[in-house]
Amino acid sequence: MKHLFTIPLALMVAVPAMADMSGETYSRWVDDKGETRLPENYRTTWTHLGSWVVADEKAPGKGFHDVYTQPEAAAYYRQHGRFPDGAVLVKEIRTLQTGFKTTGPAQWAGENAVWFVMIKDDKRRFKNHPHWAEGWGWAMYEASNPALNTSKSFTETCQSCHIPARATDWVFVEGYPTLKP
Amino acid sequence: MKHLFTIPLALMVAVPAMADMSGETYSRWVDDKGETRLPENYRTTWTHLGSWVVADEKAPGKGFHDVYTQPEAAAYYRQHGRFPDGAVLVKEIRTLQTGFKTTGPAQWAGENAVWFVMIKDDKRRFKNHPHWAEGWGWAMYEASNPALNTSKSFTETCQSCHIPARATDWVFVEGYPTLKP
Repeated sequence: MKHLFTIPLALMVAVPAMADMSGETYSRWVDDKGETRLPENYRTTWTHLGSWVVADEKAPGKGFHDVYTQPEAAAYYRQHGRFPDGAVLVKEIRTLQTGFKTTGPAQWAGENAVWFVMIKDDKRRFKNHPHWAEGWGWAMYEASNPALNTSKSFTETCQSCHIPARATDWVFVEGYPTLKP
Repeated sequence: MKHLFTIPLALMVAVPAMADMSGETYSRWVDDKGETRLPENYRTTWTHLGSWVVADEKAPGKGFHDVYTQPEAAAYYRQHGRFPDGAVLVKEIRTLQTGFKTTGPAQWAGENAVWFVMIKDDKRRFKNHPHWAEGWGWAMYEASNPALNTSKSFTETCQSCHIPARATDWVFVEGYPTLKP
């Protein structure tokens, strides 16, 4: 029994670093037409990159943002300074809760509202596809129906907010301490 | 080769749920005198429970709070509604960064400032120890010297802020979506 457990535990450490994410990503969350679906269990099994709070009620991204990626994608970024093919970023937006705590006025995350998803595509798999551009797939899901990508297209729904992050491969890395080496 | 990888991957899922955390916790982060140290790598290998923002400059807990625990501890909580012996909660507090993004005025996490750590102790291992009370070990570390627990004692440093969370075993679970079943 001892050996049965010794070997797998060693591999638990080794496998994530070796894993090629793109196989799983492009079979599990992207179909062969380039249609995407929202990954599940990112909170329980993925790595938290960082958070944002947008408190302005009138802002397009209002709410509490938490951003997650696969553990292997974060490890790859820390080593190479870029996301590997198949990396998936899930930006979960929840309602913004506010209240007075013993530590002073506080903000925290309430119920699910919206998810924005980016899927790294080094191979430019889907030419002239409205949701695939700039080396990423782009999607948006809403809590009323998380099965439906409600983004109109990269240019209509995603581009304008992400323009300032263009120099860092369209990702707002300054808010993600987990990516720092 | 196929079988070599099929078996370990199955165990990767099974092992964390079976693991008894207390052995690792009480050898790695707590010594036999009840002195604690700050776990490393919680951002890369642990589960993110949730975040808090305390923006008031004069508040004792000002900054961006991110809270992490072992994946097995979060899974146990979702199943049983309580933390198991050996569960460790790391509340990482970073400086609060603010700025105008395309989504409106935003807040995010900057550099490390303080960590608060709670260690679940069902066995009440350390009687009359200043840092062990109410079924938890309590510690505070500061970025200027993360090796040193600078909490004076549970009653002097921790209790007053945590009193409102007494009914939920001293943890502010309302801010932790990952604990919801």
